Amino acid sequence: MNRPERIESDTETVMLALGRAAREAQRTLATATTAAKNLALTEAAKALRSRSAEILVANARDLEAARARGTSGAFLDRLSLDAGRIDAIARGLEEIAALPDPVGAVIASWTRPNGLAIERVRTPLGVIGIIYESRPNVTADAGGLCLKAGNAAILRGGSESFHSSRAIHACLAAGLAAAGLPETAIQIVPTVDREAVGLMLKGLGGTVDVIVPRGGKSLVARVQDEARVPVFAHLEGICHVYVDRDADLAMAVPLLLNAKLRRTSICGAAECLLVDKAANGTYMPALVKALLDAGCEVRGDAAAMAADTRVTAAATDDYGKEFLDAVIAVKTVDGVDGAIDHITRFGSQHTDCIVTSRTETAERFIARVDSAIVLHNASTQFADGGEFGMGAEIGIATGRMHARGPVGVEQLTSFKYVVRGNGQIRPK
Amino acid sequence: MNRPERIESDTETVMLALGRAAREAQRTLATATTAAKNLALTEAAKALRSRSAEILVANARDLEAARARGTSGAFLDRLSLDAGRIDAIARGLEEIAALPDPVGAVIASWTRPNGLAIERVRTPLGVIGIIYESRPNVTADAGGLCLKAGNAAILRGGSESFHSSRAIHACLAAGLAAAGLPETAIQIVPTVDREAVGLMLKGLGGTVDVIVPRGGKSLVARVQDEARVPVFAHLEGICHVYVDRDADLAMAVPLLLNAKLRRTSICGAAECLLVDKAANGTYMPALVKALLDAGCEVRGDAAAMAADTRVTAAATDDYGKEFLDAVIAVKTVDGVDGAIDHITRFGSQHTDCIVTSRTETAERFIARVDSAIVLHNASTQFADGGEFGMGAEIGIATGRMHARGPVGVEQLTSFKYVVRGNGQIRPK
Repeated sequence: MNRPERIESDTETVMLALGRAAREAQRTLATATTAAKNLALTEAAKALRSRSAEILVANARDLEAARARGTSGAFLDRLSLDAGRIDAIARGLEEIAALPDPVGAVIASWTRPNGLAIERVRTPLGVIGIIYESRPNVTADAGGLCLKAGNAAILRGGSESFHSSRAIHACLAAGLAAAGLPETAIQIVPTVDREAVGLMLKGLGGTVDVIVPRGGKSLVARVQDEARVPVFAHLEGICHVYVDRDADLAMAVPLLLNAKLRRTSICGAAECLLVDKAANGTYMPALVKALLDAGCEVRGDAAAMAADTRVTAAATDDYGKEFLDAVIAVKTVDGVDGAIDHITRFGSQHTDCIVTSRTETAERFIARVDSAIVLHNASTQFADGGEFGMGAEIGIATGRMHARGPVGVEQLTSFKYVVRGNGQIRPK
Repeated sequence: MNRPERIESDTETVMLALGRAAREAQRTLATATTAAKNLALTEAAKALRSRSAEILVANARDLEAARARGTSGAFLDRLSLDAGRIDAIARGLEEIAALPDPVGAVIASWTRPNGLAIERVRTPLGVIGIIYESRPNVTADAGGLCLKAGNAAILRGGSESFHSSRAIHACLAAGLAAAGLPETAIQIVPTVDREAVGLMLKGLGGTVDVIVPRGGKSLVARVQDEARVPVFAHLEGICHVYVDRDADLAMAVPLLLNAKLRRTSICGAAECLLVDKAANGTYMPALVKALLDAGCEVRGDAAAMAADTRVTAAATDDYGKEFLDAVIAVKTVDGVDGAIDHITRFGSQHTDCIVTSRTETAERFIARVDSAIVLHNASTQFADGGEFGMGAEIGIATGRMHARGPVGVEQLTSFKYVVRGNGQIRPK
């Protein structure tokens, strides 16, 4: 053939080798014992604690570089580690070790009239690529969850946390080695080259089974453009709280304050308050005043502005915006159907809440709001695997394929059918 | 902006409109009552029977065109309809109507210590694009299954069955209309232009949630190259029967004959026999003779050729080939691990079987063969949703994401979490 030879870039060579190693390691991992996987996790936790000083040195390098770039406070806070945070990361791994092993669990079983015994059994998914941003703890959380579910992981952290993530990854590798499992079961991309992300999204020559992206708008857009393998999308959390005409205001006020302000930087934080037109006269002033008094900036429509002079006019793009800060958009809607329409148009299918004392209204909202998590009379900040009783999670998936809502070990598995017979053949 | 305007092709205009209509219809369908969906299905079945003559005229047009192209017997048989086959298609819709409605079913529920009641509830997937080949019955089966699960369907049948599929589709539309549901809930691509397939694989401007491809190698390759939306892959069924040293030969022979020859054109038909080296001397001659005597062509390795003079030499590419005919590839392997290695290399993760009387050996095979369906001592021809007791199916998914194995109504759903509280807020 006279086809000109295609030259791989250095990054491509490195990444394809990572993919092949992951695929190879995954075969071993798929049938690794629960004891071996748990030992790898607890040994990694030990390594995190014993190498705490080294990790902090690596983290200091990242922080110094971030400060040199003039990076802001909230970002620096997410990036920075201390002994307490390292211990929390180690405890996270120990908690994953304590979870039941999902692999091999029988999800369903039944026997057919012809005697065939059918089981639906959990299996690993395969090789999982995780693309994340500044928080270095994701390195351990994601790597640990993948390992527990029998999956190989390829981790690509943000360039800002490069040294911290590598130092944490070294502890995971030490845990794997101590347990006699292939160290390549959890790999970290050894380059900050952004080409690596594109290559992962293309599947590294068929070796990556699924990509889990965790990040903001620019990553999400890139994933949607470039991904050629399945994605467990973790889009923004544009969470709404709708206060219905039949809401109990004494319940709605603290619930709203919690949903918006308990923590403003998490994906389950509320970003938009919708108030029923029929209750505007009484509810709007009380809700808006409570937010403002608690230190939250309120950007609202005419009714919100009329309710309190401190409210500023919302710009069109304030609806559907993830502020991740003490800012909220407020809008009047025409009853529950108005709320559903607004959420359908501006939401991100993450987490949305209705406050009402009327069951029929709540059930209408629940049936028609197509979000991963729909809450009735409870704070959106419960959108969390731990709060659901599901243990550690990689994040909240906003897609409808395979995983949705909190993505923990079970969501990182697939299944197969096992059919046991005694010579059955299928009649004509 | 000076960006030059992109001109849509006619096909593109048509297809994008189909996508928008499907998305719109799906919103209605998502909350349609079970009674309305079932009425649409039973009315469509009635229409199929009452318009039988029209459908046969349409089918005659397709058959004539196929004959004019010099098409072969098996293909013509798959394409051709008669009153009996039309009645079977109608009964298929009635059976889907009789299935429980998956939408709204509570898959799991639990209460947290703080009183939050959490439910995992089935929801529709959204808009499903189905790309299939010559069998016109898929039009009704796939459309009916999507409808029952609250999904809108965009059907793109093979150009060979264009008129037959359109005539069947008209009956589905009549059923929808009779039930007061949007006729656009099930649409058929009104052109044979192959560009339509490419547009569906790109997701029709974000309106298609998942593609279900059903077809042979060329469709599969195209899907893998071009798909930009999730795919429930239905690859070939390269199914293996492994006869272990500890097999009961009296069980293995009829099982193998059934797996290979009951029907040779279905995806669950065995395509390759693997025989344990340790049992070659006795088992190989018996198995090969039974196949040959039953009229099956055998392409084998040296041991198979030594066992019977009628065996021809297998070419390298006979392993991993889907014959869909009375032909089988035979190979000697070194015990269960040799069988697992061969299947890992040449299989299509569809359906594979071990025949052995030793439990440990069977369990090793079951744990290590990564196929949608793994059978112990039962024919591969059981790879069928009906045989699993799951009702009608679109096909057998060979991927590991979301759906795997028989894809029936439940596999065509997603889920969401519904959380009911009485004012709970999350503590700091």
